[in-house]
Amino acid sequence: MKIIAEKINGTRKRVAQAIQERDAAFIQGLAKEQAEAGATWLDANAGTAPQREPEDLIWLVENIQAVTDTPVSLDSANPKALQAAIKVVKKTPMINSISLEPGRIDVFPIVAEHKCPAVALAMDEKGIPKTKEERISIIGRLLEKTRSMDIPDGNLYFDPLAMTIGTGQENALVFFETIREIRAKFPEVHVTCGLSNISFGLPARKYINRVFLALSMQAGLDCAITNPNSKDIQTTILAAELLLNQDRYCLKYTRAFRAGVFEE
Amino acid sequence: MKIIAEKINGTRKRVAQAIQERDAAFIQGLAKEQAEAGATWLDANAGTAPQREPEDLIWLVENIQAVTDTPVSLDSANPKALQAAIKVVKKTPMINSISLEPGRIDVFPIVAEHKCPAVALAMDEKGIPKTKEERISIIGRLLEKTRSMDIPDGNLYFDPLAMTIGTGQENALVFFETIREIRAKFPEVHVTCGLSNISFGLPARKYINRVFLALSMQAGLDCAITNPNSKDIQTTILAAELLLNQDRYCLKYTRAFRAGVFEE
Repeated sequence: MKIIAEKINGTRKRVAQAIQERDAAFIQGLAKEQAEAGATWLDANAGTAPQREPEDLIWLVENIQAVTDTPVSLDSANPKALQAAIKVVKKTPMINSISLEPGRIDVFPIVAEHKCPAVALAMDEKGIPKTKEERISIIGRLLEKTRSMDIPDGNLYFDPLAMTIGTGQENALVFFETIREIRAKFPEVHVTCGLSNISFGLPARKYINRVFLALSMQAGLDCAITNPNSKDIQTTILAAELLLNQDRYCLKYTRAFRAGVFEE
Repeated sequence: MKIIAEKINGTRKRVAQAIQERDAAFIQGLAKEQAEAGATWLDANAGTAPQREPEDLIWLVENIQAVTDTPVSLDSANPKALQAAIKVVKKTPMINSISLEPGRIDVFPIVAEHKCPAVALAMDEKGIPKTKEERISIIGRLLEKTRSMDIPDGNLYFDPLAMTIGTGQENALVFFETIREIRAKFPEVHVTCGLSNISFGLPARKYINRVFLALSMQAGLDCAITNPNSKDIQTTILAAELLLNQDRYCLKYTRAFRAGVFEE
């Protein structure tokens, strides 16, 4: 299981403040704690106005790289910010994200040129589709485009976009079935998602989110956009990998136990 | 999700002592707490020597029935004990269990005569099979027998028998695939299992057991032999039912939240 660590995101108040005030220590703290918790990529989202974003994203990337070797995930729909930040990365970054929305079309050449892995959203100019069939159709169109640009399928992390169960009680089932179909139809691609949308508007969300994570992994999810420091997330991933035969000799599980990840 | 509550089991030391000493209050306490937690059946297992078992099982059933209307699950391979206990039940009991093991053959006529639901183990005289194919083949043979005795498929709760992941890292996957195939091939039957075998010999077992429960439910498990008072089990079932579209209008989940089932 790969993890895109979600905390360095300028849409969060405290992070926005740190970016505004150039509070390097705060950003570096988030970078370190997430890297040490086992993040595969550290998301970097400046969340600022387009003219400020290139500078702010560079500042985030440089501060992250000052404290960890874990690669970044450049989280922006703004080609100028991506072009600027990609010049300062030390390792090939994840790009978050491409989609068939008109505003994101200019991100594809960056992904192609720098051979980046990329999150690909299953939505187009009409927004997030309701059915599995529409999502699969969008993913098919997106793959036509990436293949025409020689972007390997294996670099793509499709996000089928989970909608909260609060507005449609079949939403999670549609999501799981979409994952299964993506895996069956396009065996090289990866599947990712944010974990918390599913429970938006409902109480006791962490219980829903952790079961959603396990069920998504069984369906074929192999990457999550989440908080790697959450014990709930860590223990669910460890147990699900163990049960899904993704943990040779139970080594990861027993090591995590000795490291004190589980509370008894 | 149906639950066969597991605590009244004479193989547990404290319960054996209560049976020995005729400590009715202790057994009634277990019956009440499990019934109030939402058990569908209360397992009653005397675990005593064959000549004592009929008397002990009757004593258990009568004490359970003194405090709750929840039906019992008569847990014995001894036809004499089952025949004796079935005379005192107030509601049709679950029979736990039938199988193709030679010693259990005499249990089938009891299930047929009293139209009981029954746990059916996917094992024969050779023990627990290793592969999905062998399990499905045993279940097929078992169904030939039950159908010949006019036992409806819908009364059967097949237990595919999970083996611990500690002795074979593919064991849970085999289990999930077996559930899916049972559901596809025999749409009327139910699938049940005990939850704790899967983690035998491993540390931090509750984390494995709760993820195992959720993944089994996604595969088609609709009954579990477990402790209904466990918060881990309760919250996992509630979240999994919510996500698997088995909780209309999220009513069970939000009611449980208001009742304080979830700790924040």
